[in-house]
Amino acid sequence: MNEDRIAKLNKLEKKLNYKFNDINLLNLAFIHTSYTNEHSDFKNKSNERLEFLGDAVCELAFSEILFKNFKPKQEGFLTKVRANLVCEKSFSELADHLELSEFLLLGKGEEKTGGRDKPSIKSDAFEAVMGALYLDGGYDVVFNFIYNLIIDKVKELKIQKESVNDYKSMLQEYLHKKNKSNSTYKLVNEIGPSHNKLFYFEFYIDDKKISEGNGKNKKIAEQMAAKNALEKLGVLKK
Amino acid sequence: MNEDRIAKLNKLEKKLNYKFNDINLLNLAFIHTSYTNEHSDFKNKSNERLEFLGDAVCELAFSEILFKNFKPKQEGFLTKVRANLVCEKSFSELADHLELSEFLLLGKGEEKTGGRDKPSIKSDAFEAVMGALYLDGGYDVVFNFIYNLIIDKVKELKIQKESVNDYKSMLQEYLHKKNKSNSTYKLVNEIGPSHNKLFYFEFYIDDKKISEGNGKNKKIAEQMAAKNALEKLGVLKK
Repeated sequence: MNEDRIAKLNKLEKKLNYKFNDINLLNLAFIHTSYTNEHSDFKNKSNERLEFLGDAVCELAFSEILFKNFKPKQEGFLTKVRANLVCEKSFSELADHLELSEFLLLGKGEEKTGGRDKPSIKSDAFEAVMGALYLDGGYDVVFNFIYNLIIDKVKELKIQKESVNDYKSMLQEYLHKKNKSNSTYKLVNEIGPSHNKLFYFEFYIDDKKISEGNGKNKKIAEQMAAKNALEKLGVLKK
Repeated sequence: MNEDRIAKLNKLEKKLNYKFNDINLLNLAFIHTSYTNEHSDFKNKSNERLEFLGDAVCELAFSEILFKNFKPKQEGFLTKVRANLVCEKSFSELADHLELSEFLLLGKGEEKTGGRDKPSIKSDAFEAVMGALYLDGGYDVVFNFIYNLIIDKVKELKIQKESVNDYKSMLQEYLHKKNKSNSTYKLVNEIGPSHNKLFYFEFYIDDKKISEGNGKNKKIAEQMAAKNALEKLGVLKK
């Protein structure tokens, strides 16, 4: 490896908050098979094996974070959330966040056809870097790094899934006690571009509008309408 | 937990070669949801969350063992072998080996319909026990336990996949050098019941029989024929 490459990888080490014992391992995480095929001195040296190991390391780290942060939730819920976090789309976004793309060593053909921006190649690089981190530093290093990387997202999910969910259940329970079965949530508006929409709901009992609520997705918007209804009905304090 | 149950679990600890700090965690690994549903004091206490975590722990331990034992092999090969080892069938067999079934707490319905012998329930119990071991003892405890449990099988696979594979490639290379392209392996016989068959192959160059070979599957039988041919041709010593 030349000095420029080492200096570049040293910058990445700072982002990873970890100094490699063997910097070649970190470099290997960026060698795509298309590069290997064009450089005979790299025979059998690509990031695929690191990716294989990193895939499993990520699975455990993400699982453990979810397991510990969603204590009352059962396996079905955890598996669903894990599937959303441990996937090509999510890993490709984490690779973007760490700007891993610029470190990739690609073959000429792959470079020409935009390989550097392919979600699959970026996701594989993220897994390979985690595999390298695991081999060089052990599980705790990977766990702590991933924890810091995703804990905000997990906390956001937690607010969405746990506390907010209570409002709809709470309202339903209240209405059941009061023998009011004829209630409904109505979607009345959605504004903004598709990637940044806001949904507006109204909540009715016996065709009488009780409250409104909005949110980034339908679930949250309904929950907000339920929260506002609970306040209107005097069940919750404003 | 009563004393009998604790004494029983203590026996399992010996098999696991590990003494739990919290024996309740090991007990939880055997509480099936069907049992939870029938015992109101066990609300939300089933082995499903441990299974979720154990699934990921097993994935990493198996991956690491394969990664380290098949050094020259690439990701495609490793993924294929992992899929065969990390699956319900394989985990159910490991559960049988550890006799985990007898520890299961099942609901009456599940017990009646033979739940204690269902591969899915046994496999889940194996994962849950590994999850409990991970929470109580950490990754190294799980890794060492699984390593000792499967290393013989991995070594056997290694002999099948690596050294034996070399004979066919070696023979092909030799024939290529000698400009002999007209060679073939012929299946001449298969004997024994389906679960314990023996396959017999013969190897020909230019319609002249050079060697014979047999083995538990076609691949091994062909490889043995190749080995015998290499010996006949003087490439390998007998």
